[in-house]
Amino acid sequence: MTEPQPGGAPALTPAIVFENLQAYQKTCALHTAIELDIFRAVGQGPGDVASIARHASASERGIRILCDYLVVAGLLQKVGGRYVHTPSSAAFLDPTSPHCLASIARFLANPVMRAPFEQLTEVVRRGTTMLPGAGSVEPENPAWVVFAESMGPMMAPMAGPLGEVVLQGRKGPMRVLDIAAGHGLFGIEIAKQNPLAQVTGLDWAPVLRVALENARKAGVQERYSMLPGSAFDVEFGGPYDVVLLTNFLHHFDKETCVGLLKKVRSAIKPGGMVATLEFVPNEDRVSPPMPAAFSLTMLTSTTAGDAYTFKELAEMHRKAGFGEATAHAIPMSPHTLVMAHT
Amino acid sequence: MTEPQPGGAPALTPAIVFENLQAYQKTCALHTAIELDIFRAVGQGPGDVASIARHASASERGIRILCDYLVVAGLLQKVGGRYVHTPSSAAFLDPTSPHCLASIARFLANPVMRAPFEQLTEVVRRGTTMLPGAGSVEPENPAWVVFAESMGPMMAPMAGPLGEVVLQGRKGPMRVLDIAAGHGLFGIEIAKQNPLAQVTGLDWAPVLRVALENARKAGVQERYSMLPGSAFDVEFGGPYDVVLLTNFLHHFDKETCVGLLKKVRSAIKPGGMVATLEFVPNEDRVSPPMPAAFSLTMLTSTTAGDAYTFKELAEMHRKAGFGEATAHAIPMSPHTLVMAHT
Repeated sequence: MTEPQPGGAPALTPAIVFENLQAYQKTCALHTAIELDIFRAVGQGPGDVASIARHASASERGIRILCDYLVVAGLLQKVGGRYVHTPSSAAFLDPTSPHCLASIARFLANPVMRAPFEQLTEVVRRGTTMLPGAGSVEPENPAWVVFAESMGPMMAPMAGPLGEVVLQGRKGPMRVLDIAAGHGLFGIEIAKQNPLAQVTGLDWAPVLRVALENARKAGVQERYSMLPGSAFDVEFGGPYDVVLLTNFLHHFDKETCVGLLKKVRSAIKPGGMVATLEFVPNEDRVSPPMPAAFSLTMLTSTTAGDAYTFKELAEMHRKAGFGEATAHAIPMSPHTLVMAHT
Repeated sequence: MTEPQPGGAPALTPAIVFENLQAYQKTCALHTAIELDIFRAVGQGPGDVASIARHASASERGIRILCDYLVVAGLLQKVGGRYVHTPSSAAFLDPTSPHCLASIARFLANPVMRAPFEQLTEVVRRGTTMLPGAGSVEPENPAWVVFAESMGPMMAPMAGPLGEVVLQGRKGPMRVLDIAAGHGLFGIEIAKQNPLAQVTGLDWAPVLRVALENARKAGVQERYSMLPGSAFDVEFGGPYDVVLLTNFLHHFDKETCVGLLKKVRSAIKPGGMVATLEFVPNEDRVSPPMPAAFSLTMLTSTTAGDAYTFKELAEMHRKAGFGEATAHAIPMSPHTLVMAHT
């Protein structure tokens, strides 16, 4: 252990080493708290250990220790011995909040999603996923049904701003292709904002069932059609006014992305556009935290994917024959929308 | 997503939810970086991707993405495209530093240690470990050999201050019993500070081999003897001037702790003392972060252990017949030394 530093600088401690080595406990604690419906109990009850334990059908010892841990992790507060929401847990973890996104734990903290990280040392040695085939984008991977079912609440807040940016200066009848639609929320948003838009969702058939259900809920199912299959294999049809390419390019190497963008471009009308939503780190590749950190997920789960910088994405679009790309930050989200015209 | 708050308050974002759900990646990233000797490469080389990859016998793609992630996690810095140490990584993660404690990853980030957290939901429901028998303190659990071999560098900085506090006002010949000695460093430190101290280490035989090796390295093996077995079963012998009870009580319920403390007291000379080193949270049980968070590890891995408050520890010592306990913070560590006299 080092001595306190002269000159008033704070003494070095190894706390950051312990925190990182034990960080896995945070994932498990939040996942468990969501599974046991702790955040609803805290929001609606008196917040003492006994009442939370009753709500969760769990032991008081377990609840006391778990809730104390959640306080240490900044996910609850403890006031006078009772647990109460933080502003963030009230907004994003209490199921009674319209902004609740607790369901994302089913995807992000899923043991299947976490498993590739158990082989990270060998992954770094080889520079590619240890998963069989194409990794997470292997055809018909059931993880994408879980993604479509559970990640909507994370994506929904981005749909409005995305729709506004995409539809700026565009009115009237239009055809929209939503590639790797997943939950379908981005294409559905276009249909909501423009009553003359016809939207086609492309994804594996079991995933598209989730998108269609969301289109029904939004009341736009009459203008929502489905194109089941792989974006690399199916005929896109068209031509389209707008193609949405959301959270998809990061799974592939640059050459594959350029090839797909060429196929996309050939399905777009003159004057039409592609709207690519991505985690886009700065050129230093270490900021902002979420887009920069996302590369590690692509390293572990794909053969050659990455979180691409705007410069790289602009170059891919250029090589595919698009005009100069522009970047639009989506407010309050870790995503950037990259747009390019034919 | 909520709107920006009026009055200049920062807008709420769900970042804390994503961070906690994906925190497991930090554990894996640091574990891998230590396994691949990244921190030595950064300290001794030019810090570019190619040279680190060569040192680690790893792919450049993997190293670039891993090192960028370590920067995001605050474990490295990136300057002009090259990776350089932070003050903390230089001190605590570079194997050439005398304070390096990278070996603790072998215990803290060990899949065997992490496994019980995969069942956390059921653990909280039941309020006790899902591990068989007594959990982590099941007899002859090989994890304690890994603990003894790898956790020394975390404990070593505490040994000096602990020895000074324990030996304050005590000189000359003395007998010391180190219960659950593990690496043995605390008892060995007493022997180093007092050349007339005779130290007995008690632990499972395979663990004591590690302690004896450490005693040899410290040159005190002539005054170090071994008492193999369980603290609950073996005869302590004695009487002793000092009994060290370090990082042990947290594995057991209060009644078991009182029973053990009674046995300890009966092996101590009049005027002698027990020195109990523990993670001791404040009475609120949610601060400081490390001692408070430690309870969750006891929940998952023991039948009824806990991180006890000072009030609880003082009561245990009192019930076992000791005088009033006093608490001594160990500087720069998450531990507290609790001392009580016969």
